[in-house]
Amino acid sequence: MIRVGLIGYGYWGPNLVRNFSAAEGSEVLMVCDINQQSLNKVRKSYPNIKVTSDSNELIKDPDIDVVAIATPVFTHYELAKKALNEGKNVFVEKPFTYTSAEAEKLIELAEKKNLKIMVDHTFLYTGAVRKIKQLVEDHVLGDIFYYDSIRVNLGLFQHDINVVWDLAPHDISIMEYVINDKPQAVVATGAEHFDRGLEDIAYLTIYFTKNIIAHINVNWLSPVKVRTTLIGGQKKMIVWNDLEPDEKIKIYDKGVQVKTKEGKYNLLVAYRSGDIWTPRVEQTEALKLMVDKFIDYISNGGRIINDGPAGMRVVRLLEACNKSLKNKGEMVYL
Amino acid sequence: MIRVGLIGYGYWGPNLVRNFSAAEGSEVLMVCDINQQSLNKVRKSYPNIKVTSDSNELIKDPDIDVVAIATPVFTHYELAKKALNEGKNVFVEKPFTYTSAEAEKLIELAEKKNLKIMVDHTFLYTGAVRKIKQLVEDHVLGDIFYYDSIRVNLGLFQHDINVVWDLAPHDISIMEYVINDKPQAVVATGAEHFDRGLEDIAYLTIYFTKNIIAHINVNWLSPVKVRTTLIGGQKKMIVWNDLEPDEKIKIYDKGVQVKTKEGKYNLLVAYRSGDIWTPRVEQTEALKLMVDKFIDYISNGGRIINDGPAGMRVVRLLEACNKSLKNKGEMVYL
Amino acid sequence: MIRVGLIGYGYWGPNLVRNFSAAEGSEVLMVCDINQQSLNKVRKSYPNIKVTSDSNELIKDPDIDVVAIATPVFTHYELAKKALNEGKNVFVEKPFTYTSAEAEKLIELAEKKNLKIMVDHTFLYTGAVRKIKQLVEDHVLGDIFYYDSIRVNLGLFQHDINVVWDLAPHDISIMEYVINDKPQAVVATGAEHFDRGLEDIAYLTIYFTKNIIAHINVNWLSPVKVRTTLIGGQKKMIVWNDLEPDEKIKIYDKGVQVKTKEGKYNLLVAYRSGDIWTPRVEQTEALKLMVDKFIDYISNGGRIINDGPAGMRVVRLLEACNKSLKNKGEMVYL
Amino acid sequence: MIRVGLIGYGYWGPNLVRNFSAAEGSEVLMVCDINQQSLNKVRKSYPNIKVTSDSNELIKDPDIDVVAIATPVFTHYELAKKALNEGKNVFVEKPFTYTSAEAEKLIELAEKKNLKIMVDHTFLYTGAVRKIKQLVEDHVLGDIFYYDSIRVNLGLFQHDINVVWDLAPHDISIMEYVINDKPQAVVATGAEHFDRGLEDIAYLTIYFTKNIIAHINVNWLSPVKVRTTLIGGQKKMIVWNDLEPDEKIKIYDKGVQVKTKEGKYNLLVAYRSGDIWTPRVEQTEALKLMVDKFIDYISNGGRIINDGPAGMRVVRLLEACNKSLKNKGEMVYL
Repeated sequence: MIRVGLIGYGYWGPNLVRNFSAAEGSEVLMVCDINQQSLNKVRKSYPNIKVTSDSNELIKDPDIDVVAIATPVFTHYELAKKALNEGKNVFVEKPFTYTSAEAEKLIELAEKKNLKIMVDHTFLYTGAVRKIKQLVEDHVLGDIFYYDSIRVNLGLFQHDINVVWDLAPHDISIMEYVINDKPQAVVATGAEHFDRGLEDIAYLTIYFTKNIIAHINVNWLSPVKVRTTLIGGQKKMIVWNDLEPDEKIKIYDKGVQVKTKEGKYNLLVAYRSGDIWTPRVEQTEALKLMVDKFIDYISNGGRIINDGPAGMRVVRLLEACNKSLKNKGEMVYL
Repeated sequence: MIRVGLIGYGYWGPNLVRNFSAAEGSEVLMVCDINQQSLNKVRKSYPNIKVTSDSNELIKDPDIDVVAIATPVFTHYELAKKALNEGKNVFVEKPFTYTSAEAEKLIELAEKKNLKIMVDHTFLYTGAVRKIKQLVEDHVLGDIFYYDSIRVNLGLFQHDINVVWDLAPHDISIMEYVINDKPQAVVATGAEHFDRGLEDIAYLTIYFTKNIIAHINVNWLSPVKVRTTLIGGQKKMIVWNDLEPDEKIKIYDKGVQVKTKEGKYNLLVAYRSGDIWTPRVEQTEALKLMVDKFIDYISNGGRIINDGPAGMRVVRLLEACNKSLKNKGEMVYL
Repeated sequence: MIRVGLIGYGYWGPNLVRNFSAAEGSEVLMVCDINQQSLNKVRKSYPNIKVTSDSNELIKDPDIDVVAIATPVFTHYELAKKALNEGKNVFVEKPFTYTSAEAEKLIELAEKKNLKIMVDHTFLYTGAVRKIKQLVEDHVLGDIFYYDSIRVNLGLFQHDINVVWDLAPHDISIMEYVINDKPQAVVATGAEHFDRGLEDIAYLTIYFTKNIIAHINVNWLSPVKVRTTLIGGQKKMIVWNDLEPDEKIKIYDKGVQVKTKEGKYNLLVAYRSGDIWTPRVEQTEALKLMVDKFIDYISNGGRIINDGPAGMRVVRLLEACNKSLKNKGEMVYL
Repeated sequence: MIRVGLIGYGYWGPNLVRNFSAAEGSEVLMVCDINQQSLNKVRKSYPNIKVTSDSNELIKDPDIDVVAIATPVFTHYELAKKALNEGKNVFVEKPFTYTSAEAEKLIELAEKKNLKIMVDHTFLYTGAVRKIKQLVEDHVLGDIFYYDSIRVNLGLFQHDINVVWDLAPHDISIMEYVINDKPQAVVATGAEHFDRGLEDIAYLTIYFTKNIIAHINVNWLSPVKVRTTLIGGQKKMIVWNDLEPDEKIKIYDKGVQVKTKEGKYNLLVAYRSGDIWTPRVEQTEALKLMVDKFIDYISNGGRIINDGPAGMRVVRLLEACNKSLKNKGEMVYL
C-alpha cells in the first residue's frame, strides 16, 4: 500500500486525493495547504486524512512514501528536492519545473536516490490520446505532415505564468508522445493586454527533423472554448475535438497526391476523399489510469511515458517559447 | 453603360461575367481565354458575347471601357499595364500583383491616365464583413485585442503560388478593413510536403501599432473545411463562422478585467459572461454589390474600399510573409 | 432545521442526499434501501447518516420531518401514504404516482393532515425553463402556436414503466408550466420491440383549448442523445437545446403572416427573419434551488409550482397516454 | 433523342429544363406557363426553346415525346390524362395526383396506351438514400425497429395543400423504398394557425406489418431548418442529416439486448456501443440521375422505383393522413 501526502489542495489537488484514495494500491495520509479553508474542505470530505499547513511536516513524515505536489510552478523544485532528499517518490503537477535546469537536477537526484518521479501529464492517459497514439504506431495515418492544436477559452488567468505555460503543456506533451520525433526549433508569437508582462495569447510553431510542423494556438481571451487538434498524415487525417462527449476522434480517409510535371501549368493533383471513421474511445478516467500506473511504477519499476525526462522535455520547449516570445518570434533551437 | 472585356474564364471568371452581365450599368462585350473549351462555354451560355484567345485584341478594342483580369497572379501586371495604357479602367482578381513594386507602378499609371482600378476583394462586400465593420466602428467591441482566423481545407493546390498567397488575401484584406490600424510587422511560419518549393501550410502573426495581434492559419491539407474568425475586444467578442448558412456572426457579451494588486498572489480577475446576439446579416451576393460599386466608381468617382492602394497593402503583407517564411519566422517589418 | 429521511438510494437518491445535506435549512438523518451495497455507499460517504433496510423504521422515526421517496413508481403511493399518516411531509420522485386516483388520495390526505407534498419535477427549476417561462409571461413570444420536444437516447430501459412514463414527465411538466393552458386531449402512438408489453418508442400529441398543439417524441432506442424543444410563437420562436453547455436557448425573431385574399391563387405570406438572441441562463444547480424552495415551503408555506396537484396533472396525462397507446392512437380527453 | 415539353416554370420547373436540356438523350422543345414573366425567363436563358401559355398547344405538339408537369397538384390529373391521350409519356411532379383514384386512372390509361409515367420523387436518387437502401439490403442494420424523420422549416406556405402534402411526400417515398414493407395504418395529428383549413404542423405515425413504426414530423412554422432521419435497427442505427454538406450519414454500431428474467426486478439489458462509420456518399445531382433513368426507361423499358404505382402509394398514404387529421388522430387503415 503506497501512502501519499499531497501538498496543494487548490483546483487540481482534490482530484488527486480522490484518485489516490480510491486506488487499490494507495491511500492518502496527509494533505498540506497554506489556506485554512482548503484544509477545512479536506476535514469535511475525508475525516481520516491528517491536515497541515507546514509542508515540512508532511515531507518529513516517515509513514509517507509519495509526495504529490499540486502547487504553483515556481514552488515545484524546492518541494520536490526536499521530498527526494527525504527519500520520497514524487508526483508533480505539470509543468514539471520553472526551468529545465531544475528539472535536470531533480532527475539526477531521483536517480541517485533510486526514487521515482511522475509528472502529471494526465492527457496522455485519456482514451482519445491512447487511440491516436495507436493509430500512428499502426501506420494508419502514414507519414505525419502536421499537428495543429487550438486550446482557447475565457480565463483562468494565472498569476505567475503566461498562457503558454498554463495551456500548452497539454499540447506539447501529447504532440511529443504522438509524433515520436524530436522537436528541433520553435517560433513563438503572442501578445498581452493587461500590462502584467505575461502573454494572454500565443501562437507556437514547432519544427521537427522531418518536414513535420506543429502549431499550437493558446488564448485566455476567447469567448468560446475550443479544444480541437488536426493531425494530417499522408494516408489519413484526424480531427480530435475533445469537447465532444462521445465522438471525440474522427479519422478521415482523405489525402492529396501532387505530381508536378515540368513547367508551371502542369501541376497534377489527385485528391482522395473516402469514408470517415469514428472509433469508440475508452471512457475510463485518465487520472485513475495514471495513478494506477504510478503505483505500479513505484512497486515494480519498468517505464512510464510521463517520467522526469518527459516532463523536462516539455519544460525545455516552454523555455524556448518564452525566449522566442521575448524576441518577437525569433527561431529558438532546442 | 460600362462595357466590359474579361480576360480569364477559369474558376472565377464566369462569376464576373454573370454579374457584369446582370448589372444595370454594365454589359460584357468580349471574353478572352487561351483555352478553347472555356471559350466554348462562353459561346454556349452567352451567344452574344465575342470570344478571343488573344488578350491584345480585347485590350485594344475601342468599345471596351473596363478590362477585368481573372488570370493567374504572375500575369496581372503586364495585362493591367497594357489595359491602362490603352485607356481602360481595370478590375483585377486578388492578389493584385506579384510584387508591391508592380502594384505601385499600376497605381501611378492609373492616376496619370485618370483611370480607375478595383481589386477583387469580394469578401469586403459580404453582409458578414460589413456587419463586423459596423460593430467595430460603433465601438460595440471596445478596443480590439486580437483577430484570429482559420481558413483551411483540402486543396485546391495552386501551381504558381503558395497557400498564403492563395487563401490569406481574404483574411488580410478583411483584417485591414476591420481593424483600421496599420500592420507593423509579420512573423510567418510554414511547411511544404511535396517538394514544390511552395508552402501548403502556413501560420501568420501580424503585429499592429497598439497591442493588437492578428493570426491567420491557412492550410491546403486539412480534412475539414474551416472558415472561422475570432475577434476579441475589450467589451465584446465576435465569432464569425462563414460556413454557417444563417447564423454567421455571434457577438458575445464576454470580457475580462484584470486588477493585479501588489505581489504575486494578489491577482484579481473579473470575468463577465452575458448574452449572445446573432444579428441578421444581409444576404445580397457580395459580388453583385461590388460590381455595382465599381460601375458607380467609374461613372461618378468617389472612394472605394478596395482600390489600388488597398490591393497594394495586401501584396506588401504577402511579400513580407514570404520573406519571413524563407527566413523561418524572422520578423519582417512593413 | 428540517430533518430528512430518504428511501431509495439508487440512481437519483444520492443527488437528493447531497443536496439535502448541503442545504442550509436541512440535514439528512437516515437513508433506507433494500440493497446492502447501496447502504454501504451511504456509510462510506456519510458516516453520520443512519442506514436501514426497513422503510417503516425510517417513516416512524420521530426525529424525521420529511420523507423523501426515490423508489420505483409503483411503490410511491404506499410509502407516501404511510409517511403522511405518520405526520411527515413528503418529497416524491417523478412521476408522482402510478395512478391519478392515488395522487388524489395523497393530496387529500396531506391537506387533512396539514402536510406538504413536493413532486420532484427538477427541470422546472433549471435556468433554461425559468428563462423560457419568463419570456412567455413577458409576451416576448406572442401567442404560442406549438411546443415540440424530442427526448431520445439509448436506454436506460426501466423494468416497470414504458418510455413515456420514464422520459415524458419532464416534458409534460415543463409544457404545462410554460404554456399555462389546460391540455384537452391526447393522442399517443408507439411501439415496443422486446415483447415486454412496455413501449420503447412513443409519440404524444397534446391538444389545448386554443389552437396550441404540443408534441413529445420519446425513444429509448436512439443512437444519439437529443434534448431539443421548439416553441413557436406568433412573434418569436425558441429553440432550446439542453445539451448545449452554454448556449441552451436561442430566441429567433422569425414569424409568418398569412393574408389569403379570395381565391386559391391569392395567398400572400409575409416571412419575417431577424436577429437571434441567446440569453445568458442561470447556472445554479436546479436541484439545489428546488430543495431550498421545499424547505421554505415547509417552514413558511406559500405556493410552489411542483406541488401535489401539479404532479397529479402529469400523472393524469400519462394515464391518458397509456390509454391512447393501448387503443392505437385513439384520442383520449382529459 | 427524347423531346420534352414542360408545363409549369415556377420553383422546380427550371431545374427540370436544365437537366432535360443537359442530358445526353433528351432536349426540351417547349415550355408552357400562364405567367408571362416566367416565359420571359425561359426566352432569356434558352433562346431556342419555344414558349406558350396554352398547355393544349404543348400537349398536342406532335414533335413532343414527353410531357413534364410541374404545376400545382390539383392540375396534375387533367394535364397528365390529356398528355397520355395524346400519346405522350408523362413525368409528374410529386405528389402524383390529388386523389389515389386519379392516380389509378392514369396508371391504367398509361398501360393501355403503352406509355410511361415517372413521378418526381427525386430524393430516391440521392447518394444518401441509395446508400441507406444498400445498407438495409445488405442486412447491415438487421431488423428495422423504427424510421423517424423531422422535416421542418419556416414556410413556404402552399395555397392548395397542407404541410403534409407539401413536405411528407419526400419522407413517405423514402420510407417506403427503404423499409420494403407495406404500411398498414396511419395516425395523423396536427394543427393550423391561420384559419385557412390547411394544417401548418403535422405528426404522422405509420404502422407496418411487423413491429416497425415510422414517424414523420413536418412543420412550416419552425425557426430552424431540420432534415434529420433516425433509422433504428437491431444491429446498427443510422442518423441521416441531409443538411450536412459532407457527412450526411452516420452508422452507429449501437444496440440493445433485453433479457427479462421472471419478475419485475430481473430486467437484464445489455447495451452495445461501438464505432461510428460515415460512408462517403455519391455526390452526383439526384435529378440528373433520375432524368437519365427516365430517358432509359422510355427508350428501353425495364423497371423504375418511382413509377406510377409508387406515386400512387404515396398519394394513398397522404389521403389517409388527411382523413386521420380530420378525425383528430383516428387510426386509418390502408
